[in-house]
Amino acid sequence: MKLEQLDTPAAIIDIARMQRNIDRMQTHLNALGVTFRPHVKTTKCADVVRAQIAAGARGITVSTLKEAEEFFAAGVADILYAVGMAPAKLPRALALKQNGCDLKIIADNVAAAVAIVEFCKAANDTFEVWLEIDTDGHRSGLTPDDDALVSIGRVLHDGGIEVGGVMTHAGSSYELNDPEALAALAEQERAGCVHAAQRLRDAGIPCRTVSIGSTPTALAARHLEGVTEVRAGVYVLFDLVMANVGVCDSSDIALSVLASVIGHQPGKGWVIVDAGWMAMSRDRGTSKQTRDYGYGLACALDGTPLEGCELVGANQEHGILAVANCDDLAGRFPIGMKLRILPNHACATGAQYPAYHGLSSDGSTVEWPRFHGW
Amino acid sequence: MKLEQLDTPAAIIDIARMQRNIDRMQTHLNALGVTFRPHVKTTKCADVVRAQIAAGARGITVSTLKEAEEFFAAGVADILYAVGMAPAKLPRALALKQNGCDLKIIADNVAAAVAIVEFCKAANDTFEVWLEIDTDGHRSGLTPDDDALVSIGRVLHDGGIEVGGVMTHAGSSYELNDPEALAALAEQERAGCVHAAQRLRDAGIPCRTVSIGSTPTALAARHLEGVTEVRAGVYVLFDLVMANVGVCDSSDIALSVLASVIGHQPGKGWVIVDAGWMAMSRDRGTSKQTRDYGYGLACALDGTPLEGCELVGANQEHGILAVANCDDLAGRFPIGMKLRILPNHACATGAQYPAYHGLSSDGSTVEWPRFHGW
Repeated sequence: MKLEQLDTPAAIIDIARMQRNIDRMQTHLNALGVTFRPHVKTTKCADVVRAQIAAGARGITVSTLKEAEEFFAAGVADILYAVGMAPAKLPRALALKQNGCDLKIIADNVAAAVAIVEFCKAANDTFEVWLEIDTDGHRSGLTPDDDALVSIGRVLHDGGIEVGGVMTHAGSSYELNDPEALAALAEQERAGCVHAAQRLRDAGIPCRTVSIGSTPTALAARHLEGVTEVRAGVYVLFDLVMANVGVCDSSDIALSVLASVIGHQPGKGWVIVDAGWMAMSRDRGTSKQTRDYGYGLACALDGTPLEGCELVGANQEHGILAVANCDDLAGRFPIGMKLRILPNHACATGAQYPAYHGLSSDGSTVEWPRFHGW
Repeated sequence: MKLEQLDTPAAIIDIARMQRNIDRMQTHLNALGVTFRPHVKTTKCADVVRAQIAAGARGITVSTLKEAEEFFAAGVADILYAVGMAPAKLPRALALKQNGCDLKIIADNVAAAVAIVEFCKAANDTFEVWLEIDTDGHRSGLTPDDDALVSIGRVLHDGGIEVGGVMTHAGSSYELNDPEALAALAEQERAGCVHAAQRLRDAGIPCRTVSIGSTPTALAARHLEGVTEVRAGVYVLFDLVMANVGVCDSSDIALSVLASVIGHQPGKGWVIVDAGWMAMSRDRGTSKQTRDYGYGLACALDGTPLEGCELVGANQEHGILAVANCDDLAGRFPIGMKLRILPNHACATGAQYPAYHGLSSDGSTVEWPRFHGW
């Protein structure tokens, strides 16, 4: 089906842009001598992940066991579940492993490590566990110098569990917008995670993998000595938050929401579209950045940004597009006209849809299902 | 399955609270002498809608044609599609009507009215159309005194289309928190919509239905003279935004997210849970209200709010619960402990899930599917 024939709202992936984003990251990481394990939580879409793997990715990162199950069923075996293990989820993780999935799980505390050891003893099986390191203070993990790092490693190692690596995610990179600051955080992420790995090895606990990454730090890294692999997710589509961070241009953003004009409020300079927060998500990630795009930046059907046309309001199925300096709103944006809206946050926007529509340069589209839930 | 056995995150509906909310709204509107057409966009769940209809609701309101299709298939025929009609959606709407659905559509501009007339002529069929009235300036619709109101009514009427009514939604009520201000807005919503209907009738255009409503104005209305029906959606579950508006107590909130503790950052007073923005939505609706709950208010498994325990941060699958004044985080919130988190916005949080789990007073749960997409 042609782009302009699709029902609205619809989530559109510009395939050429996506492929360019994939190639850029893979080439960059190849040059830095590390492997790449993309985070598939961004798209939850087998068609996208196939393109990432075809370009050279080795294994994937997931944020839920549902993602692990879906992608294992789709043929991907090397999977890192990168959210701290809740003990009650161990049976579901073990079922994957017993079906042949090379699933790695993570932990950052003694209680979880003990639960994993006891579960494995009872099940007469094992897991490969990576320890989560906190290199920027934004969320989870053990700081590289935390005494508990070695003691947790020892609980696992002595309990017969393979400590396969350490991993970190410098998510505070999303708050930066300066290349030097990004490079400095990338180095902090690298050095902290390498140091944590070394402390484990010095304590006699093997630690093969050193896994780091976020889209901004991955792209800003100048060397990755001691690192074995990088993870990143949103780079595959990019979004307005990433454009504000400075790691892409708006012309790199591969995801947009196709919407129809359904009304006007000429006195206010508003065009009403059928893309509200259900279509865009409630993400307001640009609200604290240099440029606030509201709920998104409108583009013409061909993808050209319409400067000064931003989605300033969103109810469930209504978006309010504010248009600057236009005295003929209904003429410029007639009822039924289709627009494309670039999102703040590709992960959150994609999650609102049962499928993407992959758009080729000839204007044809193909449906790419994505899954939903846990 | 018992509540504590469910995988996390999960969306829980306390059935007794939901039934109390349903009965409260229906009793209030019965006393005011109007019928009630609940907005099912809040839950998109047949089990919830059955309870609304059993209590006395007459017909439903939907925000997408997918909702109309799903609920028509589930046995509900009287449906108002309350988003301005995009002409390209007319064939899909007509298919519903031709299958026996009593679907009403809305318009607020001449171009849409002309498109509906021309489409119906070509299809040799018709629609019942309601005109959308803007009574508070927050979004779409014609102001009650707009000259275009009568001219659009005439385009439809003279084109053989039944103008079945007028409808308005005073969505700016979400920004209030004072009972007198809510009552005043409810009266403004009523009076404006009744006036618009009278103008149409005075011009010789029949206008049977006068439909108004939002959860806050519906509950605040003191009389509804001239109104025939009320619409409201979120009242069925309520949420923290509505508690701040003052139309419910936190003990009325029927939706919560079941989450597990997966980590701690004791130095920061943080408990990490497996409910991030994918589980809660990105809605920050309380951020500009009297009390900002972050991404939600934590409760014990039995639903008792844990005052001072709010979800201050959310990544995709990680929530950061800040706990005030606790020097034994890991003791009070052990790894694997299950909590329930009240959401800012029930419509947005529910949309993240393929199903709710209806919770009975004995702790047992039943799965209630909800649908997704357009």
